[in-house]
Amino acid sequence: MSQELLELALELGCRLRCRGLTIATAESCTGGLLGHAITEIAGSSDYYVGGVVAYSNALKVSLLGVSEATLADYGAVSPETAREMAHGARSRLGADVGLGTTGIAGPGGATPGKPVGLVCVAIATPDETIVHGWNFAGDRSAIKDQTAVAALRALLNIVDGI
Amino acid sequence: MSQELLELALELGCRLRCRGLTIATAESCTGGLLGHAITEIAGSSDYYVGGVVAYSNALKVSLLGVSEATLADYGAVSPETAREMAHGARSRLGADVGLGTTGIAGPGGATPGKPVGLVCVAIATPDETIVHGWNFAGDRSAIKDQTAVAALRALLNIVDGI
Repeated sequence: MSQELLELALELGCRLRCRGLTIATAESCTGGLLGHAITEIAGSSDYYVGGVVAYSNALKVSLLGVSEATLADYGAVSPETAREMAHGARSRLGADVGLGTTGIAGPGGATPGKPVGLVCVAIATPDETIVHGWNFAGDRSAIKDQTAVAALRALLNIVDGI
Repeated sequence: MSQELLELALELGCRLRCRGLTIATAESCTGGLLGHAITEIAGSSDYYVGGVVAYSNALKVSLLGVSEATLADYGAVSPETAREMAHGARSRLGADVGLGTTGIAGPGGATPGKPVGLVCVAIATPDETIVHGWNFAGDRSAIKDQTAVAALRALLNIVDGI
């Protein structure tokens, strides 16, 4: 992973610990990278309860509670699905914050209107669920890393208000 | 991740694809690294259904079906827990093969008889569940990587017989 991602995971860990918050992840396009980054930090078990790598749509439904209708109407890579993934991570895994990622890491998987690099990230807090979207460039590995970096940055921007 | 881990993930992908097998992961000490490595390979969604990062004991129970008695009697880092994690990944996530990891990545977490670097890996197939144990040296990141490498090597050793 990038040095930037590791530094963000360290900073996030400090902030979560300071505030006494726990986090759970719901990863599709990042495939476990967010969990890997968070758990590179010693003592992360104090605030990271765990996560789901919901690579298949079936797991998005069974483990995270994403609705079949959302997947059918908007697709797996959509703000709506990201929102339900983050919400599911938070509520089903029992954490204060849920962080969800879905996107097209490529090189395959693009559809009309959804190019490789399209990514949605959602953050579910006790009060609200915020969704962000990006179009990243680069190869599969670069898109995964940029998504994880963007997700942690987005969370860091709001964590002090949770 | 190490180049060795990436190369093993590529080789595993080829072998799983050739045999038409799917895989699911149940990660504790590797924290998502196995999923991250597997999903670095383009097209991995064809054989990787997803996984659970069961960092807390509560998630080992709720998402993977590890029994409370096993955790109480043997501890989270034990061959018995690894076995139930791999079995749970396979059966609950709906894959041909389940791969489970649990261990003490350090620097904290050691207990009498269970030093930092103690790792258990289990592979659940349709026919059996195999458990391996290792004592790795190095820092947290090195122990995670060695665990993931060992897990993929162990699976590669038997995948042609599944």
